[in-house]
Amino acid sequence: MDAYEIAVIPGDGIGPEVVDAALPLVADAAEEAGFSFETTRFDWGTERYLDRGEMMPDDGLDRLSAFDSIFLGAVGHPEVPDHVTLHGLLLPIRKGFDQYVCKRPNVLFEGIESPLRGYGSGDIDFVVYRENTEGEYASVGGREHRGFDHETAVQSALFTRRGTERIVRAAFEAAAAREGHLTSVTKSNAQAHSMVFWDDVVEEVATEFPSVEVERLLVDAAAMDLIRRPHEFDVLVASNLFGDILTDVGAQITGSMGLAPSGNVHPDESSPSMFEPVHGSAPDIVGEGVANPLATVLSWSMLFEELGETRAADALWTGVTDQLADDDAPRTPDIGGTAGTDDVVADLRSRL
Amino acid sequence: MDAYEIAVIPGDGIGPEVVDAALPLVADAAEEAGFSFETTRFDWGTERYLDRGEMMPDDGLDRLSAFDSIFLGAVGHPEVPDHVTLHGLLLPIRKGFDQYVCKRPNVLFEGIESPLRGYGSGDIDFVVYRENTEGEYASVGGREHRGFDHETAVQSALFTRRGTERIVRAAFEAAAAREGHLTSVTKSNAQAHSMVFWDDVVEEVATEFPSVEVERLLVDAAAMDLIRRPHEFDVLVASNLFGDILTDVGAQITGSMGLAPSGNVHPDESSPSMFEPVHGSAPDIVGEGVANPLATVLSWSMLFEELGETRAADALWTGVTDQLADDDAPRTPDIGGTAGTDDVVADLRSRL
Ligand SMILES: CC(C)[C@H](C(=O)O)[C@@H](O)C(=O)O
Ligand SMILES: CC(C)[C@H](C(=O)O)[C@@H](O)C(=O)O
Repeated sequence: MDAYEIAVIPGDGIGPEVVDAALPLVADAAEEAGFSFETTRFDWGTERYLDRGEMMPDDGLDRLSAFDSIFLGAVGHPEVPDHVTLHGLLLPIRKGFDQYVCKRPNVLFEGIESPLRGYGSGDIDFVVYRENTEGEYASVGGREHRGFDHETAVQSALFTRRGTERIVRAAFEAAAAREGHLTSVTKSNAQAHSMVFWDDVVEEVATEFPSVEVERLLVDAAAMDLIRRPHEFDVLVASNLFGDILTDVGAQITGSMGLAPSGNVHPDESSPSMFEPVHGSAPDIVGEGVANPLATVLSWSMLFEELGETRAADALWTGVTDQLADDDAPRTPDIGGTAGTDDVVADLRSRL
Repeated sequence: MDAYEIAVIPGDGIGPEVVDAALPLVADAAEEAGFSFETTRFDWGTERYLDRGEMMPDDGLDRLSAFDSIFLGAVGHPEVPDHVTLHGLLLPIRKGFDQYVCKRPNVLFEGIESPLRGYGSGDIDFVVYRENTEGEYASVGGREHRGFDHETAVQSALFTRRGTERIVRAAFEAAAAREGHLTSVTKSNAQAHSMVFWDDVVEEVATEFPSVEVERLLVDAAAMDLIRRPHEFDVLVASNLFGDILTDVGAQITGSMGLAPSGNVHPDESSPSMFEPVHGSAPDIVGEGVANPLATVLSWSMLFEELGETRAADALWTGVTDQLADDDAPRTPDIGGTAGTDDVVADLRSRL
């Protein structure tokens, strides 16, 4: 029987609420599927920062590196600017473990109403492959002449061949295994240095995947088309920033941020991957016990999938799907119910 | 009687169709309002490029500079990459005349169905002030080691104090004249050089406008919120790229790209401003006579407004509003009708 070691970082805000609520459920799913995992909890985050001036210890990445996988709740705090908290915890893990594929499925589940007219259950089902280590999030740039009339800030997006090829290839592989349709999103008409390079790489890698049909969209058109014709997408591949925007649009059109899971994946085993719900720390509902745990459960499903534990992954995904389709099941306020986090998890456990 | 000189660049694709169709109507509106204008037509665009290797003549900007205003149809051609056509015509005019305010109203008109459930006529009415001369569209960057493993592309976003202050101030002025609510959109959590600078400028300029309430949103959240709660926005201010994405989302949620007007405004008279429909050249419907002329008419309304010709501006805007609200009026296929471009304009003329 395999026993995995998983690092758990509950983090800020509702992070600990959804992480703690879901753990017994995911342990059940593992047991059912014939494996087990041990978790080690790291109380890193903004409370620690307010106490000691650092989001995680200096050797934080070292301490995480031996784990099979990492689960993160949320990072972000109303009293500390995001660029401090995120550059202190979330972003260093994504970059430090070279988790270059940010994988974000967007599915309109049965029982969930899309804000888009005419879209019903199953009509939306695509996955975004977002580049996760460079691009517009590179820490390259600066600010000079502070406060003077000639003050200037520069923020440079950095695209490497290696970084671009591997995310594009991962997306092609995913498309080949799904419906065979890949949409590459750029802004080549206005950003001729970076995005024309991206287009060239897509064209090159495409020759390895003759069965995949490739569509090119500009990011403004893509954002529009996710509203106009979301049913036509299968796999999208985009830079770090564009992927960020498109996945939030994706979460919105599929009914709730509370349902959107994600994986920050380093595809081989040399480094751990990290899974996290997309929703963030949601300071407005902290402590109320109403945070939606489903994005966390679905993120655990993705974690198990990545470990090759398909049975447990499927059980969790199916559990969520069945619960949402059941009119009588408890649901949290963000998706129209009145139940609490724990009720939703208890109901899910009874379905396993 | 004032007589204005207007440069008209019909451009590519459906550009000439909508521009030519609308001209007699806007001339009527001017006459009604007691002024006249003369147009000079410049056949610049991709046909010219295919012929002579240039989108416009070398002295193109000089030739435009003496006009009171510029009207542009569309730029873009299926046979030539966008970064060639746009850098050859549209972008040099925006930059060359320092048209730093890109003003894009997004209104859900009576008679138009939003793709968003529950949104009806009048529920959406906001304007985006997009920075239009720098930011992520700066021509700064490069690409090295072509074809080698260490190939790298850099695309640098450039934000100057002058460039940032003036767009932010323009947006505050607009908010003060409207509902007093301004949303500043950034990505400060991931782009700490440029966007924290932008936030600082917003905070400084805010002190000049105590009556305006300021909200700060990250671009991913803003894209989501335009779908989730579009009725709560009044004025948004954003960088060149973020403004581009948000205005396309705005056009989509208000029912059609065919209705979205825009102005590229240089607020004082030292340089001409340029007005254009947002839709682009739409190669798929060229020559069919079904392009929606309303974005063009609304863009002319914005042009007249900028010249101070409020009466003509109002007449055109009201004409469009009335036509859309009238179930029996002709409409083009993009908004659910079967009429052609000319029928729509003829109906509008009869309403003036
Ligand atoms: C919190 C922020 C840095 C992050 C991002 O932009 O990557 C978030 O929006 C996300 O999508 O995971
Ligand atoms: C065509 C393109 C360069 C342009 C832009 O991105 O500015 C267009 O999308 C727009 O919004 O006017």
